Amino acid sequence: MHIAITGAAGFLGQRLVHQLLERGELNGQAIRQLTLIDQAEPPAIEREGVELRCLALDISEPGALEPLLEARPDVIYHLAAVVSSAAEADLDLGMRVNFDATRALLEGCRAHGLSGTRLVMASSVAAYGGELPEVLDDMTALHPQNSYGAQKAMGELLVNDYSRRGLVDGLVLRLPTIVIRPGRPNAAASSFASSILREPLNGEQAICPVPTELELFVMSPARVVEALVHGAEVPASALGDFRAFMLPGLTVSVAEMLDTLREVAGESALARVRHEPDARIEAIVGSWPARFSNERARQLGFRSDRNFGDIVQAFLSEVSR
Amino acid sequence: MHIAITGAAGFLGQRLVHQLLERGELNGQAIRQLTLIDQAEPPAIEREGVELRCLALDISEPGALEPLLEARPDVIYHLAAVVSSAAEADLDLGMRVNFDATRALLEGCRAHGLSGTRLVMASSVAAYGGELPEVLDDMTALHPQNSYGAQKAMGELLVNDYSRRGLVDGLVLRLPTIVIRPGRPNAAASSFASSILREPLNGEQAICPVPTELELFVMSPARVVEALVHGAEVPASALGDFRAFMLPGLTVSVAEMLDTLREVAGESALARVRHEPDARIEAIVGSWPARFSNERARQLGFRSDRNFGDIVQAFLSEVSR
Ligand SMILES: NC(=O)c1ccc[n+]([C@@H]2O[C@H](COP(=O)([O-])OP(=O)(O)OC[C@H]3O[C@@H](n4cnc5c(N)ncnc54)[C@H](O)[C@@H]3O)[C@@H](O)[C@H]2O)c1
Ligand SMILES: NC(=O)c1ccc[n+]([C@@H]2O[C@H](COP(=O)([O-])OP(=O)(O)OC[C@H]3O[C@@H](n4cnc5c(N)ncnc54)[C@H](O)[C@@H]3O)[C@@H](O)[C@H]2O)c1
Repeated sequence: MHIAITGAAGFLGQRLVHQLLERGELNGQAIRQLTLIDQAEPPAIEREGVELRCLALDISEPGALEPLLEARPDVIYHLAAVVSSAAEADLDLGMRVNFDATRALLEGCRAHGLSGTRLVMASSVAAYGGELPEVLDDMTALHPQNSYGAQKAMGELLVNDYSRRGLVDGLVLRLPTIVIRPGRPNAAASSFASSILREPLNGEQAICPVPTELELFVMSPARVVEALVHGAEVPASALGDFRAFMLPGLTVSVAEMLDTLREVAGESALARVRHEPDARIEAIVGSWPARFSNERARQLGFRSDRNFGDIVQAFLSEVSR
Repeated sequence: MHIAITGAAGFLGQRLVHQLLERGELNGQAIRQLTLIDQAEPPAIEREGVELRCLALDISEPGALEPLLEARPDVIYHLAAVVSSAAEADLDLGMRVNFDATRALLEGCRAHGLSGTRLVMASSVAAYGGELPEVLDDMTALHPQNSYGAQKAMGELLVNDYSRRGLVDGLVLRLPTIVIRPGRPNAAASSFASSILREPLNGEQAICPVPTELELFVMSPARVVEALVHGAEVPASALGDFRAFMLPGLTVSVAEMLDTLREVAGESALARVRHEPDARIEAIVGSWPARFSNERARQLGFRSDRNFGDIVQAFLSEVSR
């Protein structure tokens, strides 16, 4: 089993690499080869019996993906992406990385005859947008209101068409908002969703920029990685005629998140969250859908976190390790 | 008012040109300039006071659209396309013409600062596909099951994103099956839908390859052209956050079409239709949705044909002219 990962040095990429090495197998086959790709060379994690290649390359450069494709991986995880704020700030960059490189990867699979290779691409809840129904389902149209979401949605259509034509065996997973991300706050509009838990749990102050009624659709990092692994194992025969769907997240309000914080870490932790409304952030995050009926994903065996308490506990046990 | 049309030598392009010249104005402004583009030079139709440019060029060639863009048209109709069977047979050709050229057009509008230019693009019912609800609406997802539909859907996302960013003032109209097309049968899977009326009305034999229960979502050529004209006149302020929707066609079964044929032209005409089931055609056409709730389009003032009798009468009065 040879697995290639683009964006392997990123947040999810690194977790996926560790998870794969821990498992040692994918789809019942021992993992023998890992090809890790990112702009900067992904860190090497030596493991006996696993041939590791760590490549620093810009996947949006012409021909950049050749080393990956020539090695004919059984599974490709396509995680490299320019995230939403950057893609909104620089249309060309977003198009090049989020769309053109995805297309080049698909074309590469076609050129190399990798029709049996399972390509798992990460898409986003940001592909949804505009006026939406109360509860979204697998037939809800994608009307993205940001360039990142548009580029992901275009990539989805391509993965689907190339899969339908038998040129690759593709699957696109739309990820919910990932909570709790470890590390520091970042420029993402959703950064607060991790901050308001992570910082207080670490004894630090955090700012909540949105009303507590606001609902989010969230998934823990561990469940996302589990879904990526499962995405390589779902048999092609079980996939229908559209290979892109939303993963089953958990619908949770900011109030419930803060309740959980208090339950887990007490009033003092809760008191570290200052409420400072930020209309800009509320506008962006408030436009993301928070309620889904994820039939396709659940039928295919993808699972949500059980409850928000579990998400917080998982974070705590991770940081204490 | 300067109007540019790609695919101007095509079926709809030619009708649109004639309609525009007949009107003499668009959106309350006299038409002073027409730029017509197609692979072969579109026929010149001289009209006093209208400066006409007919250009033979392949819009998928780099820089091909410069002459059009430099002239800074107020309205661009983007009709040039590789149709479904050809795009399915040649993925590269379809991608190049249906998607890359659309992108180049949008990039050109951006580069030339044509933010106020109304771009009206023709998309297709073929962008829908897969398992669909009984009645589709503006929130039904696009899960195209052919490369043509996928390419159109990708183009839609781009038009929407460039419009959202204020780089152009775009609008995409998904066209129903056009009935009755004049001329000869062609390779399109939907060709029979015109044939089973046109040929008998002309005293010729026709083959009906599908069961008479099959429903189609149809629009007359005249109504489609009316919609294209209206598409240039709908104010940007009335367009929502997704500028792509299905035009209001008419839902009609093959049985109703044949009933209308008998009413209009008698039993002898009906007898000219031979029923020869063709599983391939049934599979393709049967997968196209036939029932829509077209709220967005109707609110914006787009109209359907009143009934199927009108469609047939319009064809008859046209051919007798
Ligand atoms: N909720 C969501 O919608 C959501 C959340 C998280 C992730 N995602 C998606 O999951 C994937 C992984 O996300 P993440 O959180 O790990 O993000 P991340 O930013 O940590 O990782 C992305 C990686 O891609 C790399 N990359 C970017 N451009 C590249 C290029 N041109 N060539 C090579 N590498 C390049 C970056 O260096 C980075 O390491 C992305 O595709 C992202 O869009 C979606
Ligand atoms: N029901 C439907 O879904 C439906 C029906 C009709 C038309 N449409 C769409 O409406 C538009 C017009 O359709 P039509 O029926 O007039 O088709 P058509 O084939 O008669 O016209 C298309 C024109 O585009 C031109 N063209 C193709 N490639 C070109 C290139 N590379 N450079 C320049 N010109 C090029 C062709 O020469 C042709 O004249 C198309 O975009 C089509 O996809 C959709």
